[in-house]
Formats: sequence, structure tokens, C-alpha cells
Amino acid sequence: MMVLGIDGGGTSCRAALATAQSQIIGRAKAGPANIRTDLDGACENIMAAVSQAFANAGQDPARIPDTPIVLGMAGANIAAYATRLLARLPFHQCRIETDVLIALEGAIGAGDGAIGILGTGSHYLARQSGQVRHLGGWGFAVGDQGSGARIGRDLLEETLLAYDGIVPRSPLVGAVLTAHHDDPQEIVEFTKAARPRDFGTFAPMVFDYLDRGDPTAARIVRRAVAAVEASLDALGLANATPRCLLGGLATLIGPRLSARHRERLVPPLQDALGGAVTMAARLFGLERSMSDGIGGLIQP
Amino acid sequence: MMVLGIDGGGTSCRAALATAQSQIIGRAKAGPANIRTDLDGACENIMAAVSQAFANAGQDPARIPDTPIVLGMAGANIAAYATRLLARLPFHQCRIETDVLIALEGAIGAGDGAIGILGTGSHYLARQSGQVRHLGGWGFAVGDQGSGARIGRDLLEETLLAYDGIVPRSPLVGAVLTAHHDDPQEIVEFTKAARPRDFGTFAPMVFDYLDRGDPTAARIVRRAVAAVEASLDALGLANATPRCLLGGLATLIGPRLSARHRERLVPPLQDALGGAVTMAARLFGLERSMSDGIGGLIQP
Repeated sequence: MMVLGIDGGGTSCRAALATAQSQIIGRAKAGPANIRTDLDGACENIMAAVSQAFANAGQDPARIPDTPIVLGMAGANIAAYATRLLARLPFHQCRIETDVLIALEGAIGAGDGAIGILGTGSHYLARQSGQVRHLGGWGFAVGDQGSGARIGRDLLEETLLAYDGIVPRSPLVGAVLTAHHDDPQEIVEFTKAARPRDFGTFAPMVFDYLDRGDPTAARIVRRAVAAVEASLDALGLANATPRCLLGGLATLIGPRLSARHRERLVPPLQDALGGAVTMAARLFGLERSMSDGIGGLIQP
Repeated sequence: MMVLGIDGGGTSCRAALATAQSQIIGRAKAGPANIRTDLDGACENIMAAVSQAFANAGQDPARIPDTPIVLGMAGANIAAYATRLLARLPFHQCRIETDVLIALEGAIGAGDGAIGILGTGSHYLARQSGQVRHLGGWGFAVGDQGSGARIGRDLLEETLLAYDGIVPRSPLVGAVLTAHHDDPQEIVEFTKAARPRDFGTFAPMVFDYLDRGDPTAARIVRRAVAAVEASLDALGLANATPRCLLGGLATLIGPRLSARHRERLVPPLQDALGGAVTMAARLFGLERSMSDGIGGLIQP
């Protein structure tokens, strides 16, 4: 038998076809799969990625409906979206999880552990004694503390405060102003149209200047690190529980955490797509071998 | 002779016709005058308000072009917008200022002093020895600290942090969650479409709960008060310089300022429209009486 894994979100949809031992034998990538805003498009791209993964592995596409699948989908935390997606898919054994849960499965495996995803946004997930707990991920406007977008927004806010003489200037502030022709209004215009990922483009600059001892960068990163630590603390992890940071800021924030978290950091075992495949093999592989031919829907 | 004053912005455009002694004899209000996004509409509404103010005062509209005018316009801090507006208006004696400057003139008169406008946004202006200094007003995304919109945003952020167990819950947090059916996702959905004024609708609730000793409210207001004080400090006011808070939060924030600012707070002499009229009388009245018939443009 084979299993399928999907890692789908607003940017793209990746599929992997694997053996029952989670050995990936075919991969593919298709367009966005946003189950909140475009369910039709999401279904199309999921099935396109699946078909291409079968083709990539040289497997007969007639076997697609009988191949067990785990889909890790952004937005699946909202039950209505997951249910609507499930009703549209042709698979006999299908489980829909959040993109975050398959990232956890990929990073730390099936046991206890926690991940913090620090990219444009921030999101945490812990599994302890089989209990899964989400934290954060509320978005840029009123959440995502410690994320790249918030770090970028903080930088622009600090720059305008420094321009007004409310906080001291620094080389980093000078660089931001120079990049905007010394015109704070140009910064303001940018922020009016900017999406979270646009704010996030400033994050690398903050860490560059941090390495040079810039006090503004230090203040911003201190705030981000404190936010990440507060989130990890709130997960209530046992002392020995492994934790793994993922996303573009992982290697920048990780080394700056307090020892109680830093010393428990582990590198990810594999990526989220690998996590979906492994979960599919774990959930459906054993049942399948015990009573071949079980069809229907398994979604506890 | 008579003078005209205009207080125009994205919401509405108000006009007042007054005697050379700043006694208002006619008033009118017209639609929005956003010189950044709709110059044609702004001109139309300015002239509609002026005509109606003349009608309201029973004055001959043929005298409009010869009546000196001061326009306080949101967006006039950007020279290009002010210049384009000036070229479109029919007045022989015309001065375009920011809405903030006429608010300063209205609140404290022609002498030294400072205002802090604390509404949906926040903006400061000081005049000392004839030198005018702006501060803040950079907008919701990366500025407007201490404003109603920022207080509302802080409340929703604190609520989600409390929901996640990162900060303690409080009665205020409980009330916000109840208002959103105990579903944090509902708060997130609100924030995606919310404009600054929508965030600002939560500010009164924060002050309500502050009076009942709510710790979350106390933390949010402490942050807002600190931001207002930092801005007032950065204005570098002489000790004796009067300062005046305007806008919906003025009476809520004012009593909570440190003594160094609180003891120098004064009530506003008049509103921004009154300030425009007074400024017109001050700028054009004397010249006019000294050499009647001076036309053309006066805009230092």
C-alpha cells in the first residue's frame, strides 16, 4: 500500500506519495489551497498536486481514491472549513488536520513535544500525553507577537518615534530613514498598503544591526524574544519536553532564548509534508494491514 | 470687512463667516474635504460650505472672492496637496494650514502653547517663540500611540493573550470575550476588516473598567498615558507653557498625567473652526485695514 500527505495553504499546496514505511516516492506542488476563501480552487489544487505526485512516482492514478491521505491545511482549525473540504474529496480514508499539526508531527514525531513557528506570523503547538494545545496564531493586527511581521512593524514604529525625538536615534533608525529618503511620510504611506509579509521584510535588517550592537535592534529583539518565551511558558511543558522552532526566524530567535527553553531545543526531524506522510502511515497503515479493504472515513 | 474660516477633513467640511473682530455671523457644514484622495470633491464641498455660510449670515455671495480665508485642512502638511488646493480656490487672500494648526490657534490662541489631539489617532503641536513643531500623527499602523484606536487594539491583543494564558484574565477580558461569544476567532475576524475608528469603539469600555479597578484596563491605560507623556516631553516645552488636550480622550487621559503636565493643562479657548476664523482676522484684518484693497495671495 501507499499513503499520501498534503501540506496546503494560501501560498501553495504540496503533495507527497509514500510507501507504508513513509518512504516518499513521488512529490508535486500546485497552486494555493485556501479552504477559507476559495474552496473550489483549493480542491482543484489538492487534486492536481495528488495526480502529479502519482505521475512523479509512476503510479496508476486509478489508485488515488483508495490511497489513505492526511491533509494538513491552513484554516482547518475552523471546523466548518474542514468539514466542507472533506465532503468534496474522493478519498476513502482521509484525515484533515491543521498545517500546524503536521508541522508538529514532522518536527518532533508522534510523541510529546512542542513547536513554535516563527515566520511572518507566530503560532505554537504542544502535544503532551496525547493532548494537543494550540497557542497564538491570531494574526498580525492583534497577535503574532515575536513574528517577522511584528518585528518589522516595531522597527517602523521605533523609527517614527526616534524621528519625533521620543526615543533615541540609532544607526538602524538612520538606515530605515535613509531608505525612505528621510521622509517619515514615505514610511507612513508604505504602512497603509503593507501586508504582514511586507512588514516582515524588515526583520532581517533588525538582526543584522543587532549583531553590530544597535540599541534599537536590541530593544526590538528583546521584545520578540520575551514574547516567544511567554508563549512557550504558557504551553506548560514538562521540563524534559523537547521543543523545536520552525520558520524563518527560528535560528535567529532560538539562540537568544533563556536556558530553560534553549537547552531543550531540538532540530526538526523533517518538514510538515513529511509529517503528513508519517501521520498517514501511522494512522492508516496498521489498520489497513490488519483488515485490508476498510474504506470509508476515519476522522476522530 | 469679513473673514472666513474652514475646518476640513475626510469626514466633513465646516465653514464660518465672521466679522473682522472674529464674531461669527454665519455657519455651515458640507461633505468631506479630503484633499489627498479627492481634490475635486474637496473643492466642491469647501465652496458649498462657504456659500451656505454666506447665506446663513444673509451676506451677498458676490463678496466671496474678496473675503480673506484661512483653511485648516487635514493632509495640508503635505505641501503638494496644499499647493494643488490653493490653485483651485477663487479667494484673493487665502492661507492653507493643517487642521492641527487651526486647532492649536483655537485652543490656546496666537501665543505659546501646545495641544495634544487624542481621538481615534493622536497628534501633537507646539508653538514656542513663533516656532511651530508637529509630533506624531503617523497613523494607526505604526503610530498614534495613546489614541483611542491603539487603546482598542491593545484591548483585543490583551484579550487574546489572556485567552492563551499568557497574561492573567480580568473582568474586562471576560467582557470582551463574552461580547464575541467566547470565540477568539470572532475577534480575529473583526480585526481583519476593522478600521482605526472601529478599534477606537473599545476605548470607552477600557476606561469604564479602569474605574472599577480592572488590572487589564490599568495596564492598557498606563501604556497610553506613558505614550502621551513621552510625546509631551519630546515637545521640549518651557515649564510655564500651557498645554491643552483635545479629542474624545482628552478628559480621560488628562487627569492621569503626571503633575508636571497636569498642572499646566488648560481648557481650550475655542474649537478649530474658531481658530481658523481668529487666524484669518489676525493675518488679514490688520493688513486689510492698513491698505484696503490688497489682493493676491498671502501664504508665507
